[in-house]
Amino acid sequence: MKDRDLRTMILVQHQRLERFVGLVFQRLGLPEADAMTAAKVLVMADLRGVDSHGVIRLSLHKWYVKALRDGIINPKPRIQIMNETPASALIEGDGGMGMVVGRQAAELAIEKARRVGVGVVAVRNSRHFGMSAYYAMLALPHEMIGISMTNAGRQVVPTFGQEAKYGTNPICLAAPTLEEIPFVLDMATTTAAAGKLEVAARSAHPIPLGWALDDKSEPTTDPLAAQRARKLLPLGGTRDGGSHKGYGLAVMVEILCGVLTGTLACTTPPETGVRGHFFGAINIAAFRPVEEFKKELDNLLRYLKSTPPEKGQNRVYVAGEIEHETTQERSVKGIPLHASTITRLRELSEQLNVPYDLE
Amino acid sequence: MKDRDLRTMILVQHQRLERFVGLVFQRLGLPEADAMTAAKVLVMADLRGVDSHGVIRLSLHKWYVKALRDGIINPKPRIQIMNETPASALIEGDGGMGMVVGRQAAELAIEKARRVGVGVVAVRNSRHFGMSAYYAMLALPHEMIGISMTNAGRQVVPTFGQEAKYGTNPICLAAPTLEEIPFVLDMATTTAAAGKLEVAARSAHPIPLGWALDDKSEPTTDPLAAQRARKLLPLGGTRDGGSHKGYGLAVMVEILCGVLTGTLACTTPPETGVRGHFFGAINIAAFRPVEEFKKELDNLLRYLKSTPPEKGQNRVYVAGEIEHETTQERSVKGIPLHASTITRLRELSEQLNVPYDLE
Repeated sequence: MKDRDLRTMILVQHQRLERFVGLVFQRLGLPEADAMTAAKVLVMADLRGVDSHGVIRLSLHKWYVKALRDGIINPKPRIQIMNETPASALIEGDGGMGMVVGRQAAELAIEKARRVGVGVVAVRNSRHFGMSAYYAMLALPHEMIGISMTNAGRQVVPTFGQEAKYGTNPICLAAPTLEEIPFVLDMATTTAAAGKLEVAARSAHPIPLGWALDDKSEPTTDPLAAQRARKLLPLGGTRDGGSHKGYGLAVMVEILCGVLTGTLACTTPPETGVRGHFFGAINIAAFRPVEEFKKELDNLLRYLKSTPPEKGQNRVYVAGEIEHETTQERSVKGIPLHASTITRLRELSEQLNVPYDLE
Repeated sequence: MKDRDLRTMILVQHQRLERFVGLVFQRLGLPEADAMTAAKVLVMADLRGVDSHGVIRLSLHKWYVKALRDGIINPKPRIQIMNETPASALIEGDGGMGMVVGRQAAELAIEKARRVGVGVVAVRNSRHFGMSAYYAMLALPHEMIGISMTNAGRQVVPTFGQEAKYGTNPICLAAPTLEEIPFVLDMATTTAAAGKLEVAARSAHPIPLGWALDDKSEPTTDPLAAQRARKLLPLGGTRDGGSHKGYGLAVMVEILCGVLTGTLACTTPPETGVRGHFFGAINIAAFRPVEEFKKELDNLLRYLKSTPPEKGQNRVYVAGEIEHETTQERSVKGIPLHASTITRLRELSEQLNVPYDLE
């Protein structure tokens, strides 16, 4: 969602929003620390401009709130290590909030990388964990490269197919810099994230061919038809455009998050909300002096940003740059929330008896 | 290259070809075992139908042969472990053939994964290693997931840019199955591999928009203009098509292969041929029983292949399937080599005094 819709937007201070969301999750049964973790992940998505994974997902009748009320998400999971080696672990999430399970798993990967150079932690039986970047970025202050992946519900069509068979299965990698903004790649393996269809639908803008199919499995430029069909296309869009690569990357993610853990999201009934995750941490000092790495990454990013832009563009970006700039801006000015989101937060405030102080 | 060009193709038995190529590399100074490794990687590419990375790359005046003769590749490298932890290592390739250095590094990652669950080995100062799939697939008989990446010479334009700034930087992951063909994803992070331009140019077929830019940094459908310019586009093709994701993945690969090792390929003068690699091995048994993993991967692959195909297609594939079928066919019928490739092999035979017995 672009801030161009500012007329219908209300600016909300992120600290207030985080406190509010934390209280919502506490009312739904999460222990305070866990509720604050979940709130942090959601609000960080809003700060970074990844609005599709922010508080837009708070609604009495959908997603986290409904799942917690219906017992689909366990507010007090018993998170356990099932299998462990010096560099690896399999964690049982006991149906807990993905943010809570995911954070614990990503931190364990970091701890392992500190001791033996690399840590890989896979998670079974978790739930939707929000924005991937949160988990990979946990590695940054530890001078490590962080990796996070999750499987997701069925809404993507394999190359040459006509039915949705797997999820948007994102890949995220974060790497620390010295002076530049850290490199943070956080990408769904589809051409466009599902949230972009929603944005296009709201503003009645046609979508490019290669984003989605309609009910009849024909390529469509109609965002409403695309939303109805829920048939996104893999990154690449068509076979000629390389969609077999986007499709292959998504299966790679399902192998690491689903097959390695016994938690396939694509074949499990969607109403279970079951998710598997995969986290990696690479201790840079195990390979070369951290300072050298960071300087060289600075240089690489500057080199890329110095590329002469094509006509009509004034900058070449690197991954994570826009999100960083958005965070800086929104930390000061506030997070722009759509009136409909505000309405839903007010509704939550009333129903769950959480004081409303966002405006 | 499709076998439709069979009229100009000569079928060569793969064992003979491998022996011949091994002798070529021995004549160029490689020890016998190393020469055979390099030959195996090249011929395996031809067997799998990845012709762009096969013996097409043997020529007196280019690539491996020229680099070995010019001292750009060191035929007898002193490959050393520079830094090591239980789960990780940094290897110095001493300018050796990428296949020789890469194999040793991938095998070390497997050894580490056997002991501590996961192994990650990064390589500095190596050279072109051929087909990525070879290294990731080494993990398969060990009941592990294998990962391989390499950086590559500058020929790809960042999203919104107009100059080539980095390489095709491929990503490869292989995972073992019980009854199905192993999953092997081996993809350049561009829309189309450089080799595809060559194929299109030879057959004078236009290329789709989104593959490459011309000299003036305009999108082109002319394969010759694209070859002249050497400005490939990231997977996604355009920003609307998600090219920032293909671009981001390529930078991720450059971080793991180049920044982590001190061997950036994109900023190093191309004539040095310097490459960094990244190998990972994940010991499945550290997470769950191997048999369960393999059965579940079988099920996932069958589930994907059972997708109803779109009109005009009769199958939905999974990564590695076509290459496996091509290998089976070419193992029996022989590898189809273009007359121009045969001419170059004959030339090598004469110049290097290797008996020619391919036809």
